[in-house]
Amino acid sequence: MAKIQSPSGTRDMYPADLLKRRYIEKLWRDTSIRHGFEEIDGPTFETADLYAVKSGEGILSEVFQVYSGKDEAEVARIRGGANAPYALRPEFTPTLARMYAAKAGSLPKPTKWFWQQNCFRAEKQQRGRLREFGQWNCDILGGENDAESRARVDADVIACAIGAFVDAGLTATTLQVHVSDRSVVGEILRGIGVPDTRMGDAFSTLDRLPKLPPQAGEEACRAAGFDLQAFTAAAAFDGKAAMESASPLSMLRRDLASADLGGWVKIDLRIARGLAYYTGTVFEVLADGERAIAGGGRYDNLIELFGGPPTPAVGFGMGDVVLSLVLQDRGLLPEGDALMDALSRPSASYRPDVFVIPAGQSPEEQEAAAKAVRPLVAKLRRGVESEAYLSREGRKPWDADRYALASNGAPPLHARSSSKATKNIGKLLQDAAGQKAKLAVIVENADEVTIKDLRTNQQDATRTKIADLGRVVAERLGM
Amino acid sequence: MAKIQSPSGTRDMYPADLLKRRYIEKLWRDTSIRHGFEEIDGPTFETADLYAVKSGEGILSEVFQVYSGKDEAEVARIRGGANAPYALRPEFTPTLARMYAAKAGSLPKPTKWFWQQNCFRAEKQQRGRLREFGQWNCDILGGENDAESRARVDADVIACAIGAFVDAGLTATTLQVHVSDRSVVGEILRGIGVPDTRMGDAFSTLDRLPKLPPQAGEEACRAAGFDLQAFTAAAAFDGKAAMESASPLSMLRRDLASADLGGWVKIDLRIARGLAYYTGTVFEVLADGERAIAGGGRYDNLIELFGGPPTPAVGFGMGDVVLSLVLQDRGLLPEGDALMDALSRPSASYRPDVFVIPAGQSPEEQEAAAKAVRPLVAKLRRGVESEAYLSREGRKPWDADRYALASNGAPPLHARSSSKATKNIGKLLQDAAGQKAKLAVIVENADEVTIKDLRTNQQDATRTKIADLGRVVAERLGM
Repeated sequence: MAKIQSPSGTRDMYPADLLKRRYIEKLWRDTSIRHGFEEIDGPTFETADLYAVKSGEGILSEVFQVYSGKDEAEVARIRGGANAPYALRPEFTPTLARMYAAKAGSLPKPTKWFWQQNCFRAEKQQRGRLREFGQWNCDILGGENDAESRARVDADVIACAIGAFVDAGLTATTLQVHVSDRSVVGEILRGIGVPDTRMGDAFSTLDRLPKLPPQAGEEACRAAGFDLQAFTAAAAFDGKAAMESASPLSMLRRDLASADLGGWVKIDLRIARGLAYYTGTVFEVLADGERAIAGGGRYDNLIELFGGPPTPAVGFGMGDVVLSLVLQDRGLLPEGDALMDALSRPSASYRPDVFVIPAGQSPEEQEAAAKAVRPLVAKLRRGVESEAYLSREGRKPWDADRYALASNGAPPLHARSSSKATKNIGKLLQDAAGQKAKLAVIVENADEVTIKDLRTNQQDATRTKIADLGRVVAERLGM
Repeated sequence: MAKIQSPSGTRDMYPADLLKRRYIEKLWRDTSIRHGFEEIDGPTFETADLYAVKSGEGILSEVFQVYSGKDEAEVARIRGGANAPYALRPEFTPTLARMYAAKAGSLPKPTKWFWQQNCFRAEKQQRGRLREFGQWNCDILGGENDAESRARVDADVIACAIGAFVDAGLTATTLQVHVSDRSVVGEILRGIGVPDTRMGDAFSTLDRLPKLPPQAGEEACRAAGFDLQAFTAAAAFDGKAAMESASPLSMLRRDLASADLGGWVKIDLRIARGLAYYTGTVFEVLADGERAIAGGGRYDNLIELFGGPPTPAVGFGMGDVVLSLVLQDRGLLPEGDALMDALSRPSASYRPDVFVIPAGQSPEEQEAAAKAVRPLVAKLRRGVESEAYLSREGRKPWDADRYALASNGAPPLHARSSSKATKNIGKLLQDAAGQKAKLAVIVENADEVTIKDLRTNQQDATRTKIADLGRVVAERLGM
C-alpha cells in the first residue's frame, strides 16, 4: 500500500530530533523555575469563542477548527455553515487569561506563570514557521500597579527571556531586545495625524514593516494614513525625550541596567507588536536575518475582558523553531555525547536555592541593602560566567567547567525575594521559609551579605562578599 | 462579561496540578530511559486516513476532526458532507507505525521507542476517562523473529511497565499483569464453534466482559456466537496446558520469573484486548475496582499495513488519569515539599550507566554468564530496595533513604546489553562504547562480574559479587 505522509508543516521527531527539542525545553523550564515562575497548562483545544473574545471572529479563519465526529448535531451545524465549536490553540494567552480570571481572588499577587507546549496555526509552512510548533510563555499578573512597580515587573520578565539566551550561550552581540511602549507610539502616531479610529491599522502596519521592502513599506504606511518618514523622525525625537524623563521606558531601562542587562536592550519605537491587546511596554528579541525570536509586552486590560478583575499583566512568548535555527547556525545546539550529557545536567531546583532579604544597621546601609536586592536576585538567576571562560575560543554552554574557571564563577540559581512590603526581617524570613527556600541571604549593605541555612536554621558567623555569593551558594548546595 | 469555560473533559492545570503531572511524566521518562528506550514524537493531528487504515472508517466518528479554517476549498468539502481531512490523535500507534515504516531500513534492530504526550477522544467524560489525557507508550520493533526472541522482547516490554510501578511505590499485591495470547484465545473460540468470520466480534465481546454485569455478559457472548461457560472452562484448561508446554506464554512466564517478576504476572486467557491488530501476546495491568491501568501486546502485521517491511512488534500504553487515581488512592502521589524534592531528584542518565557483557573461562561459566545477563539487566533497571526499607511502615518512593538502608540497596540504573549475536568480548565492549555506556559489566559466572570503566578505560583488578552490583555501580557513579 502507499505510505501515508504526515500533515505538511508538522514534524516527525526521531530520537536525535527529540533530544534537541528536550534540550530547548530544559533550557526554558530551568530558566523559568530559576526566575521564580510556576508551570501551568490548559487544554490543547479551546472553545472557538475564547479566541474570538480576544481577537475577533476573524481569527477563526486563521486557526485549525475542531469538532467531535461523534456529536451528530455538531456535525450537522457545521454542514449547515457554522464554524466548528472548538479550535486548536494558536497561542496560550487566552487560556492563561481564562484560568487567571477564574481564580483571580485566590492567586498570589503577583502570580508568575510559565507554560511550554505546542501551538498550531493554519498557514502554509515557511522558514521559521510551522503549522505545529513549540512555544514558551512567561507571564506576571496582578500585584502593585504604580509606574515604578510596572517597570520592575517588565524588567523581571525581560530578564527571564535574556536568562534563557545567556544559558544557551548567546550574547548581546548576536541578539538584542528592542523595547518600545505602545502608549508612546500611539502619541507619535496621533501627533502625525492618525485618528484614533485608524490606530489599530497603523500599529499592525508598523508591525509588518520589517518584512516589507522599503518602498512597499512606505506605501503601506500611506495606506494606513501616515507618512513613514514623519513617523521615523518623530520616533527618534520622542525616543530620546522619553529616555531623559521619568517615563516608563526610562524606568525600565534603569532597572535592566542595574541588573547588568543594559547591553542587551535597545529602545526602538518602531516596535509596535501587531496584536491589539498590548497596552504599554512591548518588546521583540531580534537577531540578524531572522524573524523575531521572542516578543511580548504589557496587556493590562485582558484579564477584565475575560471576566476577571482589573489586573496589570506582562509576558512574553518564544517559539522553538526560530530559536533552534539561531542556535544551530551558531554551533550552539549540542549533538551526540555532548547533548546526552547536557540533558543529564541537574535541573533547576523547584525549591528556591536562595531568598534575598534586605537588612542593614544604619539608615544608609538599609537604603543600600534595599537597592541591592533586585539586581542581586537578577544576577544570581542568570549565573556568573568567569572572564577566563568568556574569553576562551569555542566555548559551549554545555562545557562542564563553564562556571569553574574563575574565583567568582557560578551556575544560575533559583533566586527569589519577597513581594511583601514589610521591612521586618523576621517576617521576611518567614516568607522565605514559606516559599521553601534552602538559604536566606540577608543583605547587610551594598557589598556584604549573611547567609542563613533555612534547612538547619544555622546562620553564618561571618559575612560573605556579594561578588562571591554565587560561588559560595553553589558550593554550599553541592552544585 | 460571562466567563468562558474550558471544553468538558479537558483539564486546567494550575501549578499544584502541573507538578503532579510532571511527577508522572518524570516517572515514565526515567523508567523508559533506564530500560533502553529512546523518545520520539509526531504531530498532534494526523491525516484522518492514517487512523482509517488501522481501524477502519468507523474510527472517524470516535475522534475529534480537524480542518484548516483558512482553506476555503477544505471548508466547502466538509459543508458538502465530507469528513475533515485531519483528526486529533486518539492514540500514538498509527504515527509510530508510519514513522517506523518510513525509515525501517536505517533503524536499529531492534528499535526501542517511547513516547509520552496527550491523546484525545470524542466521548463523554467519566471517572478515569477524559477527552484529553496523557499517555505513555513503549514499543520494541524489528530484530529477531523466532519464538524465543519474541518471548524475550515481550518480557522486556512488560518489565518496563512493571519498572514504572515499582518506582512509583506500587507492589504486586496492589496490581497484577494479566497476560494472554490472542492466538491461544482464537484457538479456544474456534474450538467452541466461533467461525473465523465472527472472530473479531468475539474478541471485542470478551474485551467488554469486565464492564458488564454477569447476565449481560452471558447474553453478549451468546449474541457473538459462543457460550461464556464453555469459553471459561476451555480457557482454564488451555491456560494450564499452555503453561506445561513450550508455548509462547510459558516462555514468556519463564523469562519474567528469571527477572524476579513472576509475582507480578498472572496468565489469564480471558484477556482479549479489543483492538483488531494484536497478533500474539496481549496483556492488561489491573487493580481492584479500576479500569485497566495499562495494556498492550504484540502486533506483528501492523508495520506492513503502513507500507513497511514485515516487522515483529510489541508495545504497551499507559494513561495518566487512571494511574494518578491509583497512586492518589494509595497515598503515593507526593505533595508540597516532598513533591518538589521528588521532582528535583536526578533524572535517568541518557548514557547507559552499565552495559552487561557475558564472558566466563570454562564452557560451564560461559553458559552461566550468558544466562545471567538478561535477568541481571532487568534487576539493575528496576533498582533494589532493601528489606529494611520494604518492611517499614509508611514508606514512600520519594524517601531519600529508599535505597540506602541495607547492604545491597541500589537505585534503578540505565542498563543495557548487546543485541548482537557475537560472543567476542572485544566486539561487545565496542558495542558498549558505541552506545556511550559509562561502565561495562563483564559477567564471569553466575555470581561474579568484573567492572570496566569505559570513561577511563580502567578495568578492576578484583571481581564484584552480582548481589552487590547495583550498590557498587551507584557508588562508583556518585549516585
